[in-house]
Amino acid sequence: MPKRIRLDKAIVTENDRLAARLADRYDRAGVLVVNLMSSPGAGKTSLLEATARRLADRFRMAAIEGDLATDRDARRIIDAGMPCRQINTSGGCHLNAKQVIQALDAYRLHDLDILFIENVGNLVCPAAFDLGEHRRVVVSSTPEGDDKPVKYPVAFRLADCVVLNKTDLAEAAGFSAEAFRAGVRDIKADLPVLEVSCKTGEGLTGWFQWVAEARKAVGSPAAAE
Amino acid sequence: MPKRIRLDKAIVTENDRLAARLADRYDRAGVLVVNLMSSPGAGKTSLLEATARRLADRFRMAAIEGDLATDRDARRIIDAGMPCRQINTSGGCHLNAKQVIQALDAYRLHDLDILFIENVGNLVCPAAFDLGEHRRVVVSSTPEGDDKPVKYPVAFRLADCVVLNKTDLAEAAGFSAEAFRAGVRDIKADLPVLEVSCKTGEGLTGWFQWVAEARKAVGSPAAAE
Repeated sequence: MPKRIRLDKAIVTENDRLAARLADRYDRAGVLVVNLMSSPGAGKTSLLEATARRLADRFRMAAIEGDLATDRDARRIIDAGMPCRQINTSGGCHLNAKQVIQALDAYRLHDLDILFIENVGNLVCPAAFDLGEHRRVVVSSTPEGDDKPVKYPVAFRLADCVVLNKTDLAEAAGFSAEAFRAGVRDIKADLPVLEVSCKTGEGLTGWFQWVAEARKAVGSPAAAE
Repeated sequence: MPKRIRLDKAIVTENDRLAARLADRYDRAGVLVVNLMSSPGAGKTSLLEATARRLADRFRMAAIEGDLATDRDARRIIDAGMPCRQINTSGGCHLNAKQVIQALDAYRLHDLDILFIENVGNLVCPAAFDLGEHRRVVVSSTPEGDDKPVKYPVAFRLADCVVLNKTDLAEAAGFSAEAFRAGVRDIKADLPVLEVSCKTGEGLTGWFQWVAEARKAVGSPAAAE
Protein backbone atom coordinates (compact mmCIF):
# COMPACT_ATOMS: atom_id res chain seq x y z
CA MET A 1 0.00 0.00 0.00
CA PRO A 2 2.49 2.66 -1.16
CA LYS A 3 -0.16 5.41 -0.96
CA ARG A 4 -0.53 4.84 2.79
CA ILE A 5 3.21 4.91 3.33
CA ARG A 6 3.53 8.28 1.57
CA LEU A 7 0.73 9.80 3.65
CA ASP A 8 2.20 8.46 6.88
CA LYS A 9 5.61 9.86 6.01
CA ALA A 10 4.16 13.36 5.67
CA ILE A 11 2.45 13.04 9.05
CA VAL A 12 5.59 11.75 10.74
CA THR A 13 7.71 14.54 9.23
CA GLU A 14 5.33 17.21 10.57
CA ASN A 15 5.39 15.46 13.94
CA ASP A 16 9.20 15.34 13.92
CA ARG A 17 9.33 19.09 13.39
CA LEU A 18 7.12 19.71 16.44
CA ALA A 19 9.00 17.07 18.46
CA ALA A 20 12.30 18.87 17.80
CA ARG A 21 10.76 22.05 19.23
CA LEU A 22 9.55 20.10 22.27
CA ALA A 23 13.01 18.59 22.83
CA ASP A 24 14.53 22.07 22.79
CA ARG A 25 11.92 23.31 25.25
CA TYR A 26 12.56 20.39 27.64
CA ASP A 27 16.29 21.09 27.55
CA ARG A 28 15.91 24.80 28.23
CA ALA A 29 13.71 23.98 31.24
CA GLY A 30 16.13 21.27 32.41
CA VAL A 31 13.37 18.69 32.78
CA LEU A 32 13.90 14.97 32.07
CA VAL A 33 11.10 13.65 29.84
CA VAL A 34 10.35 9.92 29.74
CA ASN A 35 7.90 8.43 27.19
CA LEU A 36 6.38 5.11 28.32
CA MET A 37 4.79 2.70 25.84
CA SER A 38 3.33 -0.79 26.12
CA SER A 39 0.50 -3.14 25.20
CA PRO A 40 -2.81 -2.48 26.95
CA GLY A 41 -2.64 -3.57 30.57
CA ALA A 42 1.12 -4.17 30.83
CA GLY A 43 1.39 -1.85 33.84
CA LYS A 44 2.48 1.65 32.78
CA THR A 45 0.07 3.29 35.22
CA SER A 46 1.03 0.94 38.07
CA LEU A 47 4.69 1.80 37.47
CA LEU A 48 3.91 5.53 37.62
CA GLU A 49 1.85 5.07 40.80
CA ALA A 50 4.82 3.34 42.47
CA THR A 51 7.17 6.04 41.16
CA ALA A 52 4.90 8.81 42.47
CA ARG A 53 4.88 7.24 45.92
CA ARG A 54 8.58 6.41 46.15
CA LEU A 55 10.32 9.36 44.48
CA ALA A 56 8.07 12.24 45.61
CA ASP A 57 10.59 13.47 48.18
CA ARG A 58 13.51 13.38 45.70
CA PHE A 59 12.05 14.85 42.52
CA ARG A 60 9.35 17.28 41.40
CA MET A 61 7.40 15.10 38.99
CA ALA A 62 4.33 15.33 36.76
CA ALA A 63 2.68 13.19 34.11
CA ILE A 64 0.77 13.40 30.85
CA GLU A 65 -1.61 10.52 30.29
CA GLY A 66 -2.85 9.41 26.85
CA ASP A 67 -6.00 7.31 26.61
CA LEU A 68 -8.61 6.50 23.98
CA ALA A 69 -11.39 6.99 26.49
CA THR A 70 -11.95 7.63 30.22
CA ASP A 71 -9.67 9.45 32.68
CA ARG A 72 -9.24 6.41 34.95
CA ASP A 73 -5.47 6.19 34.67
CA ALA A 74 -4.97 9.93 35.17
CA ARG A 75 -7.04 9.74 38.35
CA ARG A 76 -4.98 6.79 39.61
CA ILE A 77 -1.76 8.77 39.12
CA ILE A 78 -3.18 11.87 40.81
CA ASP A 79 -4.39 9.72 43.72
CA ALA A 80 -0.81 8.45 44.08
CA GLY A 81 0.34 12.06 44.49
CA MET A 82 1.63 13.01 41.02
CA PRO A 83 -0.01 15.84 39.06
CA CYS A 84 -1.35 14.38 35.82
CA ARG A 85 -2.86 15.95 32.72
CA GLN A 86 -5.18 13.78 30.64
CA ILE A 87 -5.10 13.69 26.83
CA ASN A 88 -8.15 11.95 25.46
CA THR A 89 -7.32 10.77 21.93
CA SER A 90 -10.98 9.97 21.09
CA GLY A 91 -10.00 6.62 19.64
CA GLY A 92 -6.59 7.74 18.30
CA CYS A 93 -3.92 5.03 18.49
CA HIS A 94 -0.92 7.08 19.73
CA LEU A 95 0.07 10.44 21.21
CA ASN A 96 1.55 13.01 18.85
CA ALA A 97 3.76 16.03 19.54
CA LYS A 98 0.94 18.51 18.92
CA GLN A 99 -1.19 16.93 21.66
CA VAL A 100 1.76 17.06 24.07
CA ILE A 101 2.35 20.76 23.29
CA GLN A 102 -1.28 21.47 24.19
CA ALA A 103 -1.13 19.40 27.39
CA LEU A 104 2.01 21.24 28.52
CA ASP A 105 -0.12 24.34 29.13
CA ALA A 106 -0.93 22.68 32.45
CA TYR A 107 2.66 22.84 33.72
CA ARG A 108 5.52 25.23 34.33
CA LEU A 109 8.35 23.03 33.03
CA HIS A 110 11.01 24.93 34.99
CA ASP A 111 9.33 23.81 38.19
CA LEU A 112 9.68 20.13 37.27
CA ASP A 113 12.57 17.66 37.48
CA ILE A 114 10.85 14.84 35.59
CA LEU A 115 7.87 14.65 33.24
CA PHE A 116 6.47 11.20 32.43
CA ILE A 117 4.36 10.72 29.30
CA GLU A 118 2.19 7.61 29.43
CA ASN A 119 1.33 6.78 25.83
CA VAL A 120 -1.80 5.01 24.53
CA GLY A 121 -1.74 1.25 25.22
CA ASN A 122 -0.43 0.02 21.87
CA LEU A 123 2.87 -1.71 21.14
CA VAL A 124 2.91 -0.60 17.50
CA CYS A 125 1.92 2.97 16.57
CA PRO A 126 3.35 5.08 19.44
CA ALA A 127 6.87 3.95 18.45
CA ALA A 128 6.60 5.95 15.19
CA PHE A 129 5.80 9.27 16.91
CA ASP A 130 8.65 11.15 18.57
CA LEU A 131 7.43 13.34 21.45
CA GLY A 132 10.83 15.01 21.94
CA GLU A 133 11.53 12.79 24.96
CA HIS A 134 14.99 12.10 26.38
CA ARG A 135 14.22 8.50 27.21
CA ARG A 136 11.82 5.92 25.82
CA VAL A 137 10.69 3.01 28.00
CA VAL A 138 8.84 -0.11 26.86
CA VAL A 139 6.86 -1.80 29.61
CA SER A 140 6.25 -5.48 28.87
CA SER A 141 4.56 -8.00 31.16
CA THR A 142 5.11 -11.71 31.65
CA PRO A 143 1.57 -12.90 30.76
CA GLU A 144 1.96 -11.34 27.28
CA GLY A 145 4.56 -14.00 26.54
CA ASP A 146 8.33 -14.13 26.15
CA ASP A 147 8.12 -13.72 22.35
CA LYS A 148 7.05 -10.06 22.39
CA PRO A 149 10.49 -8.52 21.60
CA VAL A 150 10.89 -10.53 18.38
CA LYS A 151 7.24 -10.06 17.37
CA TYR A 152 7.15 -6.27 18.01
CA PRO A 153 10.76 -5.34 17.21
CA VAL A 154 10.29 -1.66 16.34
CA ALA A 155 9.14 -0.57 19.80
CA PHE A 156 12.02 -2.45 21.43
CA ARG A 157 14.63 -1.24 18.95
CA LEU A 158 13.80 2.41 19.68
CA ALA A 159 13.65 1.96 23.47
CA ASP A 160 16.29 3.00 26.02
CA CYS A 161 15.02 0.64 28.71
CA VAL A 162 12.62 -2.29 29.04
CA VAL A 163 10.66 -2.73 32.26
CA LEU A 164 9.47 -6.33 32.47
CA ASN A 165 6.49 -6.19 34.83
CA LYS A 166 4.36 -8.85 36.58
CA THR A 167 7.29 -11.11 37.46
CA ASP A 168 5.00 -12.47 40.19
CA LEU A 169 2.91 -14.10 37.40
CA ALA A 170 5.89 -15.42 35.40
CA GLU A 171 5.73 -19.02 36.58
CA ALA A 172 1.94 -19.33 36.29
CA ALA A 173 2.12 -17.77 32.80
CA GLY A 174 4.84 -20.18 31.65
CA PHE A 175 7.12 -17.23 30.91
CA SER A 176 10.85 -17.70 30.23
CA ALA A 177 12.92 -14.63 31.24
CA GLU A 178 15.83 -16.22 29.37
CA ALA A 179 13.89 -16.38 26.08
CA PHE A 180 12.66 -12.81 26.58
CA ARG A 181 16.17 -11.50 27.24
CA ALA A 182 17.54 -13.40 24.23
CA GLY A 183 14.87 -11.76 22.06
CA VAL A 184 15.79 -8.31 23.41
CA ARG A 185 19.50 -8.97 22.77
CA ASP A 186 18.78 -9.97 19.16
CA ILE A 187 17.08 -6.62 18.57
CA LYS A 188 19.33 -4.30 20.60
CA ALA A 189 22.26 -5.87 22.40
CA ASP A 190 22.76 -3.21 25.09
CA LEU A 191 19.11 -2.55 25.96
CA PRO A 192 18.67 -2.91 29.75
CA VAL A 193 15.84 -5.15 31.01
CA LEU A 194 14.58 -4.33 34.51
CA GLU A 195 12.47 -7.13 36.02
CA VAL A 196 9.83 -5.78 38.40
CA SER A 197 6.51 -6.56 40.00
CA CYS A 198 4.51 -3.41 40.60
CA LYS A 199 2.18 -5.56 42.67
CA THR A 200 4.72 -6.96 45.16
CA GLY A 201 7.30 -4.17 44.78
CA GLU A 202 10.02 -6.65 43.83
CA GLY A 203 12.74 -5.16 41.62
CA LEU A 204 11.38 -1.60 41.70
CA THR A 205 14.62 -0.29 43.25
CA GLY A 206 16.34 -0.97 39.92
CA TRP A 207 13.73 1.16 38.13
CA PHE A 208 14.07 4.01 40.62
CA GLN A 209 17.85 3.94 40.13
CA TRP A 210 17.44 4.01 36.36
CA VAL A 211 15.16 7.08 36.66
CA ALA A 212 17.60 8.86 38.98
CA GLU A 213 20.52 8.18 36.63
CA ALA A 214 18.55 9.41 33.61
CA ARG A 215 17.65 12.54 35.58
CA LYS A 216 21.34 13.11 36.44
CA ALA A 217 22.38 12.68 32.78
CA VAL A 218 19.97 15.39 31.62
CA GLY A 219 21.29 17.89 34.14
CA SER A 220 20.00 21.32 35.00
CA PRO A 221 18.47 24.04 32.78
CA ALA A 222 20.69 25.05 29.86
CA ALA A 223 19.15 28.51 29.76
CA ALA A 224 16.11 30.42 30.97
CA GLU A 225 13.01 29.38 29.10
CA MET B 1 -5.25 17.05 13.80
CA PRO B 2 -7.96 17.39 11.13
CA LYS B 3 -5.48 16.73 8.30
CA ARG B 4 -4.84 13.26 9.69
CA ILE B 5 -8.51 12.53 10.01
CA ARG B 6 -9.15 13.44 6.36
CA LEU B 7 -6.33 11.20 5.17
CA ASP B 8 -7.50 8.30 7.31
CA LYS B 9 -11.04 8.65 5.99
CA ALA B 10 -9.81 8.27 2.42
CA ILE B 11 -7.87 5.14 3.37
CA VAL B 12 -10.82 3.63 5.22
CA THR B 13 -13.19 4.35 2.33
CA GLU B 14 -10.89 2.57 -0.14
CA ASN B 15 -10.60 -0.31 2.32
CA ASP B 16 -14.39 -0.50 2.71
CA ARG B 17 -14.78 -0.82 -1.05
CA LEU B 18 -12.39 -3.80 -1.15
CA ALA B 19 -13.97 -5.28 2.01
CA ALA B 20 -17.41 -5.24 0.36
CA ARG B 21 -15.95 -7.25 -2.53
CA LEU B 22 -14.42 -9.69 -0.07
CA ALA B 23 -17.74 -10.10 1.78
CA ASP B 24 -19.44 -10.93 -1.50
CA ARG B 25 -16.74 -13.45 -2.37
CA TYR B 26 -17.02 -15.17 1.05
CA ASP B 27 -20.81 -15.46 0.63
CA ARG B 28 -20.58 -16.91 -2.85
CA ALA B 29 -18.13 -19.52 -1.56
CA GLY B 30 -20.29 -20.21 1.52
CA VAL B 31 -17.36 -19.84 3.91
CA LEU B 32 -17.71 -18.34 7.39
CA VAL B 33 -15.01 -15.71 7.98
CA VAL B 34 -14.05 -14.73 11.54
CA ASN B 35 -11.71 -11.77 12.24
CA LEU B 36 -9.92 -12.04 15.61
CA MET B 37 -8.38 -9.00 17.29
CA SER B 38 -6.71 -8.40 20.65
CA SER B 39 -3.83 -6.81 22.53
CA PRO B 40 -0.43 -8.48 22.01
CA GLY B 41 -0.27 -11.77 23.88
CA ALA B 42 -3.96 -12.10 24.79
CA GLY B 43 -4.14 -15.56 23.23
CA LYS B 44 -5.52 -15.38 19.66
CA THR B 45 -3.02 -17.98 18.44
CA SER B 46 -3.63 -20.28 21.41
CA LEU B 47 -7.37 -20.10 20.72
CA LEU B 48 -6.81 -21.04 17.06
CA GLU B 49 -4.49 -23.90 18.06
CA ALA B 50 -7.21 -25.31 20.32
CA THR B 51 -9.82 -24.78 17.58
CA ALA B 52 -7.64 -26.55 15.01
CA ARG B 53 -7.26 -29.56 17.29
CA ARG B 54 -10.87 -29.81 18.41
CA LEU B 55 -12.90 -28.96 15.32
CA ALA B 56 -10.76 -30.56 12.60
CA ASP B 57 -13.15 -33.49 12.16
CA ARG B 58 -16.24 -31.23 11.92
CA PHE B 59 -15.10 -28.37 9.68
CA ARG B 60 -12.64 -27.67 6.88
CA MET B 61 -10.74 -24.72 8.31
CA ALA B 62 -7.86 -22.43 7.38
CA ALA B 63 -6.29 -19.26 8.75
CA ILE B 64 -4.63 -16.02 7.69
CA GLU B 65 -2.14 -14.69 10.19
CA GLY B 66 -1.09 -11.04 10.42
CA ASP B 67 2.15 -10.14 12.18
CA LEU B 68 4.59 -7.24 12.20
CA ALA B 69 7.51 -9.63 12.06
CA THR B 70 8.32 -13.39 12.22
CA ASP B 71 6.13 -16.33 11.15
CA ARG B 72 6.05 -17.86 14.64
CA ASP B 73 2.28 -17.76 15.08
CA ALA B 74 1.60 -19.13 11.58
CA ARG B 75 3.92 -22.05 12.32
CA ARG B 76 2.12 -22.74 15.61
CA ILE B 77 -1.25 -22.89 13.83
CA ILE B 78 0.12 -25.15 11.06
CA ASP B 79 1.67 -27.43 13.70
CA ALA B 80 -1.81 -27.71 15.28
CA GLY B 81 -3.14 -28.97 11.95
CA MET B 82 -4.74 -25.88 10.36
CA PRO B 83 -3.41 -24.51 7.05
CA CYS B 84 -2.22 -20.95 7.66
CA ARG B 85 -1.03 -18.21 5.33
CA GLN B 86 1.25 -15.56 6.84
CA ILE B 87 0.89 -11.84 6.08
CA ASN B 88 3.94 -9.94 7.25
CA THR B 89 2.91 -6.29 7.68
CA SER B 90 6.54 -5.08 8.02
CA GLY B 91 5.65 -2.98 11.04
CA GLY B 92 2.09 -2.12 9.91
CA CYS B 93 -0.40 -1.86 12.78
CA HIS B 94 -3.41 -3.69 11.26
CA LEU B 95 -4.47 -5.95 8.40
CA ASN B 96 -6.29 -4.31 5.49
CA ALA B 97 -8.61 -5.79 2.86
CA LYS B 98 -6.00 -5.59 0.10
CA GLN B 99 -3.58 -7.76 2.10
CA VAL B 100 -6.34 -10.31 2.71
CA ILE B 101 -7.20 -10.42 -1.02
CA GLN B 102 -3.56 -11.23 -1.77
CA ALA B 103 -3.36 -13.89 0.95
CA LEU B 104 -6.50 -15.60 -0.37
CA ASP B 105 -4.51 -16.76 -3.41
CA ALA B 106 -3.37 -19.56 -1.12
CA TYR B 107 -6.87 -21.04 -0.73
CA ARG B 108 -9.82 -22.34 -2.71
CA LEU B 109 -12.60 -20.75 -0.64
CA HIS B 110 -15.22 -23.24 -1.85
CA ASP B 111 -13.24 -26.00 -0.19
CA LEU B 112 -13.44 -24.31 3.21
CA ASP B 113 -16.15 -24.13 5.87
CA ILE B 114 -14.41 -21.55 8.07
CA LEU B 115 -11.60 -19.05 7.52
CA PHE B 116 -10.06 -17.41 10.59
CA ILE B 117 -8.17 -14.13 10.21
CA GLU B 118 -5.82 -13.45 13.11
CA ASN B 119 -5.18 -9.71 13.07
CA VAL B 120 -2.05 -7.85 14.26
CA GLY B 121 -1.84 -7.69 18.09
CA ASN B 122 -3.31 -4.23 18.64
CA LEU B 123 -6.56 -3.33 20.41
CA VAL B 124 -6.94 -0.03 18.53
CA CYS B 125 -6.23 0.13 14.78
CA PRO B 126 -7.57 -3.22 13.46
CA ALA B 127 -11.07 -2.21 14.60
CA ALA B 128 -11.16 0.54 11.92
CA PHE B 129 -10.44 -1.83 9.02
CA ASP B 130 -13.25 -4.05 7.75
CA LEU B 131 -11.97 -7.26 6.18
CA GLY B 132 -15.40 -8.31 4.90
CA GLU B 133 -15.75 -10.79 7.78
CA HIS B 134 -19.06 -12.23 9.02
CA ARG B 135 -18.02 -12.19 12.66
CA ARG B 136 -15.59 -10.12 14.67
CA VAL B 137 -14.13 -11.52 17.89
CA VAL B 138 -12.18 -9.60 20.55
CA VAL B 139 -9.90 -11.79 22.64
CA SER B 140 -9.13 -10.19 26.02
CA SER B 141 -7.14 -11.77 28.86
CA THR B 142 -7.42 -11.46 32.61
CA PRO B 143 -3.89 -10.12 33.31
CA GLU B 144 -4.62 -7.11 31.06
CA GLY B 145 -7.12 -5.94 33.67
CA ASP B 146 -10.89 -5.75 33.99
CA ASP B 147 -10.98 -2.12 32.74
CA LYS B 148 -10.14 -2.93 29.12
CA PRO B 149 -13.71 -2.70 27.69
CA VAL B 150 -14.22 0.87 28.97
CA LYS B 151 -10.70 1.95 28.03
CA TYR B 152 -10.79 0.49 24.48
CA PRO B 153 -14.49 0.86 23.66
CA VAL B 154 -14.30 0.90 19.85
CA ALA B 155 -12.96 -2.64 19.46
CA PHE B 156 -15.60 -3.99 21.87
CA ARG B 157 -18.46 -1.99 20.32
CA LEU B 158 -17.79 -3.47 16.88
CA ALA B 159 -17.34 -7.05 18.15
CA ASP B 160 -19.83 -9.91 17.90
CA CYS B 161 -18.24 -11.93 20.68
CA VAL B 162 -15.65 -11.46 23.43
CA VAL B 163 -13.44 -14.37 24.41
CA LEU B 164 -12.02 -13.70 27.87
CA ASN B 165 -8.89 -15.86 28.03
CA LYS B 166 -6.49 -16.84 30.85
CA THR B 167 -9.20 -17.36 33.46
CA ASP B 168 -6.63 -19.59 35.21
CA LEU B 169 -4.66 -16.39 36.02
CA ALA B 170 -7.69 -14.31 37.09
CA GLU B 171 -7.24 -14.65 40.83
CA ALA B 172 -3.48 -14.08 40.80
CA ALA B 173 -3.99 -11.05 38.53
CA GLY B 174 -6.66 -9.55 40.82
CA PHE B 175 -9.16 -9.63 37.95
CA SER B 176 -12.89 -9.08 38.53
CA ALA B 177 -15.05 -10.86 35.93
CA GLU B 178 -17.99 -8.85 37.28
CA ALA B 179 -16.30 -5.50 36.58
CA PHE B 180 -15.25 -6.72 33.12
CA ARG B 181 -18.79 -7.85 32.26
CA ALA B 182 -20.25 -4.58 33.55
CA GLY B 183 -17.84 -2.69 31.27
CA VAL B 184 -18.86 -4.81 28.28
CA ARG B 185 -22.57 -4.26 29.05
CA ASP B 186 -22.05 -0.48 29.19
CA ILE B 187 -20.60 -0.57 25.67
CA LYS B 188 -22.84 -3.19 24.02
CA ALA B 189 -25.53 -4.75 26.16
CA ASP B 190 -25.99 -8.00 24.19
CA LEU B 191 -22.32 -8.79 23.48
CA PRO B 192 -21.58 -12.36 24.63
CA VAL B 193 -18.54 -12.92 26.87
CA LEU B 194 -17.07 -16.44 26.76
CA GLU B 195 -14.69 -17.16 29.65
CA VAL B 196 -11.97 -19.62 28.67
CA SER B 197 -8.52 -20.81 29.53
CA CYS B 198 -6.66 -21.98 26.45
CA LYS B 199 -4.05 -23.38 28.82
CA THR B 200 -6.31 -25.63 30.92
CA GLY B 201 -9.08 -26.04 28.31
CA GLU B 202 -11.72 -24.72 30.72
CA GLY B 203 -14.68 -23.07 28.98
CA LEU B 204 -13.51 -23.85 25.44
CA THR B 205 -16.71 -25.84 24.76
CA GLY B 206 -18.62 -22.53 24.81
CA TRP B 207 -16.29 -21.13 22.15
CA PHE B 208 -16.61 -24.23 19.94
CA GLN B 209 -20.41 -23.95 20.19
CA TRP B 210 -20.28 -20.28 19.26
CA VAL B 211 -18.18 -21.12 16.18
CA ALA B 212 -20.55 -23.93 15.14
CA GLU B 213 -23.58 -21.64 15.49
CA ALA B 214 -21.91 -18.87 13.49
CA ARG B 215 -21.06 -21.43 10.82
CA LYS B 216 -24.69 -22.60 10.72
CA ALA B 217 -25.96 -19.00 10.40
CA VAL B 218 -23.80 -18.35 7.36
CA GLY B 219 -25.10 -21.43 5.56
CA SER B 220 -23.96 -22.95 2.30
CA PRO B 221 -22.75 -21.30 -0.93
CA ALA B 222 -25.23 -18.80 -2.44
CA ALA B 223 -23.89 -19.41 -5.92
CA ALA B 224 -20.87 -20.86 -7.72
CA GLU B 225 -17.83 -18.60 -7.35
